[in-house]
Amino acid sequence: MSKHSVLFFPDNVAVQVETGTSLLRAASLAGIELKSTCGGKGTCGRCVLKVKEGKVSVGGGNISAKLKTAGYVLACQTRVEGHAVVEVPRDSRLDEHQVLLDNKPVGLLAEKQVEELAGYEFQPLCRKIYLELDKPTLTENASDLSRLQAELRKYTDCRDLEISLDNLRKLPDILREGDWKVTVTLTSLNGCAEVLHLEPGRSTKKSYGLAVDIGTTTVVVNLVDLETGQIVDKRGTYNRQSRYGDDVISRIIYAGEENGLEELQQAVIGTINHLVDKLLAKNEIKAEDVHVAVTAGNTTMAHLFLGIPPKYIRLEPYIPVTSSFPPVKAKELGIAINPEAWILSFPAVASYVGGDIVSGVLVNGMAESDELTLFIDIGTNGEMVLGNRDWLISCACSAGPAFEGGGITYGMRAMTGAIERVEIDPRSYEVQVATIGNVKPMGICGSGLIDCLAKLLRVGIIDRTGQFQKDINTPRLRETEDGKEFVLVWGKDTECGKDIVLTEGDIKNLIRSKGAVFAGIQSLLKTVQMDVAQIDKIIIAGGFGNYLNIEDAIQIGLLPDVDRSKYEFMGNTSIKGAKLALISQPAYRQAEELGRKMTYLELSVGTMFMDEFVSACFLPHTDLSLFPSATKQS
Amino acid sequence: MSKHSVLFFPDNVAVQVETGTSLLRAASLAGIELKSTCGGKGTCGRCVLKVKEGKVSVGGGNISAKLKTAGYVLACQTRVEGHAVVEVPRDSRLDEHQVLLDNKPVGLLAEKQVEELAGYEFQPLCRKIYLELDKPTLTENASDLSRLQAELRKYTDCRDLEISLDNLRKLPDILREGDWKVTVTLTSLNGCAEVLHLEPGRSTKKSYGLAVDIGTTTVVVNLVDLETGQIVDKRGTYNRQSRYGDDVISRIIYAGEENGLEELQQAVIGTINHLVDKLLAKNEIKAEDVHVAVTAGNTTMAHLFLGIPPKYIRLEPYIPVTSSFPPVKAKELGIAINPEAWILSFPAVASYVGGDIVSGVLVNGMAESDELTLFIDIGTNGEMVLGNRDWLISCACSAGPAFEGGGITYGMRAMTGAIERVEIDPRSYEVQVATIGNVKPMGICGSGLIDCLAKLLRVGIIDRTGQFQKDINTPRLRETEDGKEFVLVWGKDTECGKDIVLTEGDIKNLIRSKGAVFAGIQSLLKTVQMDVAQIDKIIIAGGFGNYLNIEDAIQIGLLPDVDRSKYEFMGNTSIKGAKLALISQPAYRQAEELGRKMTYLELSVGTMFMDEFVSACFLPHTDLSLFPSATKQS
Ligand code: FES
Ligand SMILES: [Mg+2]
Ligand SMILES: [Mg+2]
Repeated sequence: MSKHSVLFFPDNVAVQVETGTSLLRAASLAGIELKSTCGGKGTCGRCVLKVKEGKVSVGGGNISAKLKTAGYVLACQTRVEGHAVVEVPRDSRLDEHQVLLDNKPVGLLAEKQVEELAGYEFQPLCRKIYLELDKPTLTENASDLSRLQAELRKYTDCRDLEISLDNLRKLPDILREGDWKVTVTLTSLNGCAEVLHLEPGRSTKKSYGLAVDIGTTTVVVNLVDLETGQIVDKRGTYNRQSRYGDDVISRIIYAGEENGLEELQQAVIGTINHLVDKLLAKNEIKAEDVHVAVTAGNTTMAHLFLGIPPKYIRLEPYIPVTSSFPPVKAKELGIAINPEAWILSFPAVASYVGGDIVSGVLVNGMAESDELTLFIDIGTNGEMVLGNRDWLISCACSAGPAFEGGGITYGMRAMTGAIERVEIDPRSYEVQVATIGNVKPMGICGSGLIDCLAKLLRVGIIDRTGQFQKDINTPRLRETEDGKEFVLVWGKDTECGKDIVLTEGDIKNLIRSKGAVFAGIQSLLKTVQMDVAQIDKIIIAGGFGNYLNIEDAIQIGLLPDVDRSKYEFMGNTSIKGAKLALISQPAYRQAEELGRKMTYLELSVGTMFMDEFVSACFLPHTDLSLFPSATKQS
Repeated sequence: MSKHSVLFFPDNVAVQVETGTSLLRAASLAGIELKSTCGGKGTCGRCVLKVKEGKVSVGGGNISAKLKTAGYVLACQTRVEGHAVVEVPRDSRLDEHQVLLDNKPVGLLAEKQVEELAGYEFQPLCRKIYLELDKPTLTENASDLSRLQAELRKYTDCRDLEISLDNLRKLPDILREGDWKVTVTLTSLNGCAEVLHLEPGRSTKKSYGLAVDIGTTTVVVNLVDLETGQIVDKRGTYNRQSRYGDDVISRIIYAGEENGLEELQQAVIGTINHLVDKLLAKNEIKAEDVHVAVTAGNTTMAHLFLGIPPKYIRLEPYIPVTSSFPPVKAKELGIAINPEAWILSFPAVASYVGGDIVSGVLVNGMAESDELTLFIDIGTNGEMVLGNRDWLISCACSAGPAFEGGGITYGMRAMTGAIERVEIDPRSYEVQVATIGNVKPMGICGSGLIDCLAKLLRVGIIDRTGQFQKDINTPRLRETEDGKEFVLVWGKDTECGKDIVLTEGDIKNLIRSKGAVFAGIQSLLKTVQMDVAQIDKIIIAGGFGNYLNIEDAIQIGLLPDVDRSKYEFMGNTSIKGAKLALISQPAYRQAEELGRKMTYLELSVGTMFMDEFVSACFLPHTDLSLFPSATKQS
């Protein structure tokens, strides 16, 4: 087959590809990551490119006539047939700076600043120890390793003091090079200590660790100084697995294809390595000085990260291969830090309550508290945990992708250009929107959608079932082939030039999503025979949570109608818990314990959840007594 | 460079090599292992080949004029310059059948048939367990691994139940393939159990283990059925490291050269894999059904086997990198059995008392006995252990290669054609010899040398200092340029056509060797302030031991002059101990304990050993009171 060069602008990077290669693939080969949440099926319409020169065969896909006329194509639907020059618009790029790190400025309630150690002892997973050994003689002729171990025992209670074969091979020369003075990096896991790294003499270099949140959509890495426990730097980006599908189900399906599992594993490892490379380069730290990593992710992400087939997670009765994940050496996975570093994965509770949730419970303190706490992490799945120091029960409900912009005509993730706040004048029905980054609107993100739904309800444009009312006098409410829609922003004011609308179908999707979350909460409460009023505290986590307007969320019946002061935001608790485990061995042990201790409520058993779901598919709910303040206002 | 083909006969194997390649290397590439104890330096004279056709450049080396005239060359000194056809004589081959396995018929004393378990409980390192698991449901939805572990806990007390990532990856499909019936191969090491192998349903296949004796010269493998504890088959061959030098010191030096360590490691692993391949093929066993291996070897061999640099073993104060060796997975070393199998190495005591000796002590029972026992393994090094259940002290003395045929004009290993028994008529001085295999004599092995020395002394041809006497009237005693020599076999009766002689130099070497061993014994006794008379039992191990004539050995002062009934032969105790550990977890733990418990006496400290050595360099000894029966006879 003949090869053609494709040149990407403004990057000015060229690659050689064969006839028939998609521009999406070519861009990836060129190191340019494009948005592509449908996995290259042409349905998400995000991988927009402009072909400036050259021969390509253009397919169809979800792209507006307007963009087409302007010379834009979908990268995934366009195949190379000769040399080509392509321009990549900024908005088609997966931009790592748009990823929510853990401490972004927040919405209406201030994010609680978690005390870094959440009450646990500061006792990092790794530390450096400087030793001065006695020189061996003919009469004091213990082996190099025994000599080292004897001295190290003064610093650790661990009975087993291990060392890898690779480090053992380096030991004799390092001891002699440092004239029997040596700096040892010691790690302690489950009562077993290991010599991870050896340096001759007294080393002045620090030991670092990584906290990694492996999300289905985004990956965030914190680089942590293990001596001080402080975060040196942090960085996040999109999970490169996104090109194989948007949600865990499509990833699981892809993992079942030939080499699919390996590709997905390499994609997420590549994502992490990319972030680590940048963090290390920027902070002038060597890879060999990073000695441990703690990862937290949902159960499917943990399986894919370790190359464990996730296939039965999506098949009834939804069984993961394992809920506790063995520690693995960095060299075994290809994580670009010290090859001997242990990569630890937070344990999961079940197929749909993963290590990210355990990590959240670890750091949010509910398992140490007398207060009855409800912890909710809303994404594509809504995962929630209810309980206190004595018991913990968890469940997951498929909220659908609506809150992340999926399945909504103009839905998008919470990134620059996303509408996040909406105001509607109750008389004129005129709309004011605020976007992330204060730029021209491109779409609407989860918090904007909730806000919009609440406002549409409040001003009476929709009723409690989500249907548009008849007698609303505004050009914004209009009839189309597919039903009614409401114009939020007119085309003249949007980035793409088209009207940004919310359709009746969008609203149905949103109601189903919020209904699922609330039904999950109700199911947990009913299972333990409690009710909303008994909840002392509600902790909201997740990227979405940070932008959430609690009042709106209660008005539409997404969250329980309790005293607003009971609500707390904690941002990305997954990475916070991972970081905590990194700097506290007792916290790490507690995470393992939590994985075992938490009960899992399978919502597909019996009819409870479905009954609750049906009741919750109203605004705010069929049972208005559950939402006294919502009822009062409307 | 141009390539030439070299065809080897009678193997009928051809290889392509570049101009200048030695025939030794070419043979090795062709899979033909030649004897080469000097490492290809041309000094051992063992790699003899006949070039039948073709162009080669012939160098010199230690080869007789007679052989040269007959068209023979040294393979290591001959370089390929064109296509060639080469014949490989049988005696130049490293013939695995010549290697001493553990139960060969013995010399004068019957080898003690060790009770296989030496009193330890039968509890193999691996066993197969058939499990029937409950099928998961929506309400009984533990992970696959938890389900398996819960059932396995009924079969093991180990708190930790581990599984490798690779096995974890296979787990879900195997469980479902067998409809939740599964056969698990479980291994237990140091209180930690691991799922090593998984088979769907009820497996009828057995679990096997390997006992491996890694000797400097030879490697022996026993294939053991772990269900019955019986040896299925055994096989031995020369250690392929031999081509890099004969003794541990030359190996250590070679390991310091570029890639030397890797080459030596690969050589011994190749040797083991070769034996394992043959054992498995012959017994129709699959590699994946071999689940564990226990190796025993001297400290240098253990270092080389694991790729740990042995360099400081030969430099004062003689410090090994480690005396306990971490378990390593077969896949990590490239041992061709189940990739998850653990390869265990017996711990060493010190640089010159290795795991082979610990293995011997384990199986010979001295550490469980009230009797004061002396255990001696004589090879190039004479290693010995003295003690009982309360204490054990060990040492190693450099006996030199004389007992293995090294440094002796017509010395050779104990293989076909070696003179092993010598009788000398006290009047006519006529000699009768017996060879191994009853073929024409080619040389003389260790037991033959000891016998010869004893007989020369007894009939008065040499005196107590080892010098030939003047007034001996026989053509066999003759003067040469290099001094006197005694003809054992006339050329007409030998394989090579030359007279087989023993020179004055040979005798000096032998006396030094036996003197070193006896001085070691005396040093141990003096250190614990005991004497020979207090010894209850003397156990002789090692390839050499099996052919040894105890009476002769006492006559020349190699072994203590105690009641002959106190002597026992145990053959290759190294492999016997390895096999014991394989079938008994308590024995394996005891081996670890022995490694720590045994004291090491460094003979180069102080003058005790040298004083003893000087006194022992007489026949039998300067202190005749130590050898009452020898004195009586002569
Ligand atoms: S439309 Fe191209 S990746 Fe989704
Ligand atoms: Mg998350
Ligand atoms: Mg041996």
